[in-house]
Amino acid sequence: MSEGIKKYPAQVLKEFSIQVFRHFGVSQKDAEQAADVLNLSDIRGIDSHGVARLHTYFDMLTLGKINPKPNIKIIRDKKSVCTIDGDNGLGLVVGPKANEIAMEKATQHGSGWASVCNTNHYGIASYYSLKALERDMIGWSMTNTTKLVAPLWGAERMLGTNPISIAFPALKNRPIVIDLATSAAAYGKIEIAKRKNEPVPKGWIINNEGAMTTNPNDMINGGALLPLGSERELGGHKGYALSAMVDILTSVLSGANWGPFAPPFALRQEIPSRSVGKGIGHFFGAMEIDGFMDVTEFKKRIDEWIEVFRNTKKAKGTDGVLIPGDPEHQEEVIRRKEGIPLMPPVVNDLIDISRRTGIPFE
Amino acid sequence: MSEGIKKYPAQVLKEFSIQVFRHFGVSQKDAEQAADVLNLSDIRGIDSHGVARLHTYFDMLTLGKINPKPNIKIIRDKKSVCTIDGDNGLGLVVGPKANEIAMEKATQHGSGWASVCNTNHYGIASYYSLKALERDMIGWSMTNTTKLVAPLWGAERMLGTNPISIAFPALKNRPIVIDLATSAAAYGKIEIAKRKNEPVPKGWIINNEGAMTTNPNDMINGGALLPLGSERELGGHKGYALSAMVDILTSVLSGANWGPFAPPFALRQEIPSRSVGKGIGHFFGAMEIDGFMDVTEFKKRIDEWIEVFRNTKKAKGTDGVLIPGDPEHQEEVIRRKEGIPLMPPVVNDLIDISRRTGIPFE
Repeated sequence: MSEGIKKYPAQVLKEFSIQVFRHFGVSQKDAEQAADVLNLSDIRGIDSHGVARLHTYFDMLTLGKINPKPNIKIIRDKKSVCTIDGDNGLGLVVGPKANEIAMEKATQHGSGWASVCNTNHYGIASYYSLKALERDMIGWSMTNTTKLVAPLWGAERMLGTNPISIAFPALKNRPIVIDLATSAAAYGKIEIAKRKNEPVPKGWIINNEGAMTTNPNDMINGGALLPLGSERELGGHKGYALSAMVDILTSVLSGANWGPFAPPFALRQEIPSRSVGKGIGHFFGAMEIDGFMDVTEFKKRIDEWIEVFRNTKKAKGTDGVLIPGDPEHQEEVIRRKEGIPLMPPVVNDLIDISRRTGIPFE
Repeated sequence: MSEGIKKYPAQVLKEFSIQVFRHFGVSQKDAEQAADVLNLSDIRGIDSHGVARLHTYFDMLTLGKINPKPNIKIIRDKKSVCTIDGDNGLGLVVGPKANEIAMEKATQHGSGWASVCNTNHYGIASYYSLKALERDMIGWSMTNTTKLVAPLWGAERMLGTNPISIAFPALKNRPIVIDLATSAAAYGKIEIAKRKNEPVPKGWIINNEGAMTTNPNDMINGGALLPLGSERELGGHKGYALSAMVDILTSVLSGANWGPFAPPFALRQEIPSRSVGKGIGHFFGAMEIDGFMDVTEFKKRIDEWIEVFRNTKKAKGTDGVLIPGDPEHQEEVIRRKEGIPLMPPVVNDLIDISRRTGIPFE
C-alpha cells in the first residue's frame, strides 16, 4: 500500500488549494474556506474527499460548470428553518455558509435547519457537524450525491451514497462523530477491487439485472451499489429508506435535483436524463444543547456513555468496541505530526494543476 | 400461519384497551390516546406493538411500575427545543403529549424538537411521525428501548433496537413513512426461529462470545442481536452508530437511562445494573414544510419522487421497488375491512385480562 507514497504537511496542501481556487477568481475568504474543508478531510484520513479531489473541482471551474463567485441567499425562511440557494457555487463554500446560517438560527431559536439547493459536492459530511461543537451545539449534516445505489429490489442506480453525519461534544473525551454513507460499501472500494482484479464481498453490489455479484466489473458496467443492509433479510430496505430520507431532506425539500437526477460531480460521469431542480442538495441542522440540558451536565453524560461503551465486553478476536469518530481521531493525531500521505496518481494530479496554472507545487 | 387465528374489528380491540387503562385510573382522554396508539399498530400490521402488548402494560400498571396519572411537564425550554419529563407515565400517553408539544413549537418557531425522559414504551415510532402530516409538517420520532443489540465488535447487549421514523406527505399518493429499527433483525424473529427449532440467517445474531451464529438459542442465552449492517465488511459499524445516535438524542440529552441502563419493558426482563437517569427516552421533531417550500409544491415533488422510484427497473425475480410505508399501507386497507387477526396466545392474554378485571371480552 505504501509504494511511492509521499507525505506533505497539511499546511502545504492547504496553501496550494487556496491558490488554485484563487486562480479562478474565488475570493480569498472563500478559497480559504474551501481549502479548509478539503484539508480537514486529509487530516482525518478520509483520503477520497481531500486534495485527491482538487483536480475534479479544477476541471469543473475550468469549464465554467461551477460559479466561483456565488451569491448565496436565503430564499425562504421561517424562524428556525430556511431554504438556501447556493447559486451554483462550490459546495465547499455554500456548505459552510449554509451551516453557519443554521447555527445562527440555533443561537436565536434553539435550533436551526437549512435545506440547500443549487449547490455542488461539499466534501466530508462531518466537517459541518464538527463546526457545531465549537458552539456547544449538536450538529447535523447530510447531502445527496450522484446516483450509484439501487433501492432494494431495483436493478439500476437511483440514489447517491447519501451520507448522514451527527456530532455530540464530550467534556474530557473526544467528541462522538458519526459520519456514514447509507450504502453498504463505498464506490472507491469497488474500483480498487477492479484494479486488483479481485472479487468483492457478497452484499456490496448488484449487476445490471439486480442480482448480487462479487465481480466488481458487473457493478461498474451498469450495475449498482447496494444500500446498507444489502439484502431484504439483513435489512437492505432500511438502508434504502435512510438514503431516501437524505435525498428528500436535502433535495426534494430544497428544490434541488433528487435521486437519479442529481448532476454528476465529475466530468466523465453520466448526465441525468432530465432536471427536476437546481444542482444537488444539502441539509444542515444545529441544536443548542443548553435548550435541552445544562451543557456541562450533557458533556459529562457523553463522557460516561463513551467510557461505558469502550468497556463493552470484547467480541473474541477483535480489539473491542470503538466510539464513532475513533478511527478519524487516531488518524488525525498521526497526520498532524507526520503529514498527509499522497498516492502517486494524486501527486501527479496536483503537478498537472501546477503546470496548467503556474502555481508552484513541491 | 393462520391456524387458530381469529379476527376482531379494530374498534372492539380499541374499546377493550380503553376500559383496561381506565381500570387503573387512567383518565378517559389518556386511555383513549393510549388505545389509539396500540390500535394504529394493529391496523398497520405491526402485530408486535399492538394489543399483543396490552398484557405487558396491564402487568406494569398492576404492580404500580407505571404512573397512571402522570404530570407531564416541560423541564427545560428554549423556543424551538425542550426537554420533557413524562413522570413515569405510559409511553402511549407521554409520547403523544410530547409529540404535540414539538408540533406546537413548529407552528410557532418553524420547527419543534422534544427530548423526553422518565417515560416508558411508546408503541410504534411511526404513530408520531404520521401525526405531523396532519399539520403539513415533516415528522420525526425515535425512542430507546431495553438492551438487546451489541455494538460492532462487542460481545454483550448494550443498546436497544432503537427505531427511527420520519414521514413526508404527498399530494395524490400515500405518504412516505420510514420506520426502521437500527438492528439487523427484530428480536421477535429470533423467538419464532427458536420455537420452530430453525436456524436464523447469518448476520442477525451473535453468541455470548461475540461470534456470529445461526442458532437462535445462542442469542437468547446471553448473546445479542447485531446492528443493521451486521458485520464490519457490510457496514455493521453504521448500524451501531445510528443506534448510538438514537440513544443519545432520546436519553443522554433528556436525562433518561441510556444504553444498557434502559429499564426493561416487561416484568421478566433483566433489571439493569444501575440507573443513570429517569425511565427510558424519546425524541420527537416536527418541521413546518411551509418554512422551506410552498406546501403544495413540496407534495407534488414527493408525488413525483414516489412515481419515479416505483418505476425503477425491477431486479430479476422480485416485484420491484417499494416506497417506504407501502407494506403497512397495504395491510391497513385489508385490516380496516376484514378486522385484526389475533393469534391464540394473544387472545388468551386478553381473556386473562378480562377475567382479572371483569371487563368483558368477546
